[in-house]
Amino acid sequence: MDPDAPRTTPIVALAGGVGAARFLSGLVRAVAPEDVTAIVNTGDDCVFYGVHVSPDVDIVTYALAGRIDRARGYGLEGDTTAVIETLGALGHETWFRLGDRDFAHCQHRSCRLAQGVGLAAIADELRRALGVATRILPMSEAPCPTIVELSGRRRVHFEEYLARDGAPDDVEGVDLSAARAAAAAPGVLEAIAAARVILLCPSNPVVSIGPILAVQGVREALREARAPRVAVSPIVGGVPVKGPADRLLRGLGIEVSARGVARLYADLLDGFVLDQRDAAQAAEIEALGMRVCAVDTLMRTPDLATALARTALALARTAR
Amino acid sequence: MDPDAPRTTPIVALAGGVGAARFLSGLVRAVAPEDVTAIVNTGDDCVFYGVHVSPDVDIVTYALAGRIDRARGYGLEGDTTAVIETLGALGHETWFRLGDRDFAHCQHRSCRLAQGVGLAAIADELRRALGVATRILPMSEAPCPTIVELSGRRRVHFEEYLARDGAPDDVEGVDLSAARAAAAAPGVLEAIAAARVILLCPSNPVVSIGPILAVQGVREALREARAPRVAVSPIVGGVPVKGPADRLLRGLGIEVSARGVARLYADLLDGFVLDQRDAAQAAEIEALGMRVCAVDTLMRTPDLATALARTALALARTAR
Repeated sequence: MDPDAPRTTPIVALAGGVGAARFLSGLVRAVAPEDVTAIVNTGDDCVFYGVHVSPDVDIVTYALAGRIDRARGYGLEGDTTAVIETLGALGHETWFRLGDRDFAHCQHRSCRLAQGVGLAAIADELRRALGVATRILPMSEAPCPTIVELSGRRRVHFEEYLARDGAPDDVEGVDLSAARAAAAAPGVLEAIAAARVILLCPSNPVVSIGPILAVQGVREALREARAPRVAVSPIVGGVPVKGPADRLLRGLGIEVSARGVARLYADLLDGFVLDQRDAAQAAEIEALGMRVCAVDTLMRTPDLATALARTALALARTAR
Repeated sequence: MDPDAPRTTPIVALAGGVGAARFLSGLVRAVAPEDVTAIVNTGDDCVFYGVHVSPDVDIVTYALAGRIDRARGYGLEGDTTAVIETLGALGHETWFRLGDRDFAHCQHRSCRLAQGVGLAAIADELRRALGVATRILPMSEAPCPTIVELSGRRRVHFEEYLARDGAPDDVEGVDLSAARAAAAAPGVLEAIAAARVILLCPSNPVVSIGPILAVQGVREALREARAPRVAVSPIVGGVPVKGPADRLLRGLGIEVSARGVARLYADLLDGFVLDQRDAAQAAEIEALGMRVCAVDTLMRTPDLATALARTALALARTAR
């Protein structure tokens, strides 16, 4: 982008982890990166090894910095693992794989939290230190752990469910009550109100976008926003591109389909980008009151991610 | 040592950092390592980068594990520095050089402290995890920061004085009031009472051995101990082998000499090993009421360190 180009279109994107990171990396090649504000899920946040880890915030930050480990989808490319290997030798569980430089970022977050700095300011410090022009806002500064409810009344933190237990399929529910009780982080509701375009990234609707929508005032702010609101489906051909969305959706009695996802957002969307493989559902989704566009949504390359972002932006321009 | 040999001589050694670590490495080749208890200075302890660092405890542990970085005298051999480099890029001061594996050990310490575990139990976990048979006891579990008083009424933590400021010579005093107000760690007074030999390692008498002697009950326990008590001089030819002992002694108005050190311990020593270069002071030190032995005290090799330890043990056998 031309750095002297007038800044015209503040874009807000609701984001989870891997899928959102890929989409946002495409988006910031389609528009000026500094015009984008990502509001990121913190329901996965957890203290591991004594440091505050914000998995989705970090994935988005690293992706936008061009430093994400593409093979794993999280963490920093080329990072080493001396710290967790050493902690493992001391008896710590090391199923949450945190590289040394990643660890240092989380240690910085913990130090700053201990100094009384909020998560939003810390996320801003980290993204600036990594040279990211896009604003990255955690959805809330309050603890909002997403709890997965499994058979036998077992309740586990989402990262325990995903990273430790390998996303078993006996999901009976997802408890977002912490997010529901949490205030939005400073700037979140303001960014939504000021946005000219609002995008819901192709992220897990239950445990990535769901917690953001659950935070106090966010869903209402989206409903009342002047900007067109467009979601990109995380479902392709009836299955999630990555992650356990199918098990989580099924556990909540929600159809694992583009249509199922669209219904979850029906009260606040103007447009829905779905994959061409799911195009047969377009009419039904339009009947929910939104415009629909069917394209190839698999972001196999950066160019495809940019094309998908352009599609979403174009739909936004016409959807309202 | 023969693992089936009867355990006969519990040895207690008061220890600081580099010099003590080298001496102890020699000592555990002269006797069964498990018969030695090192009581280690914690006046240098500090929180760096949000983790609790115990510099002297770690130096002793790493040396006895055979993993110390010999060139630097502290830290782990071959350790990497990804964490502090990353923290440096985030704006943290990084003058306290902590390697990644070293960092992990300190992070473990911090996690365990947060769980309510004491420093003594944590030091024991760490030395066992590193395969060290010698018991390593911090002098106290309470915060005991050694404060160096400089000209212009400046007061700095010992590590700021040493590692950050490069040990300037305008020392006007050393404040050990925190150590004086601190209780000994569990096991310290008991180990002194049960010892058959007590050694004061060739460590800085002001900021390494001094804080240990300042802890409540330690000096009295040493005075009343049934065991012979022998110190090894950290001064060779009128200068300290390593570190800022000359500046600290001078700042306190104490003569920088073997004799000056011996006087500091006069109330509690039975024997004093000094360097042959300082042999002219032997008679004067004997007049303080202790037996003296003059040898080569420079521990240039492990064998020389073992020989020095044997000399100290032999002096202990005859000194009382």
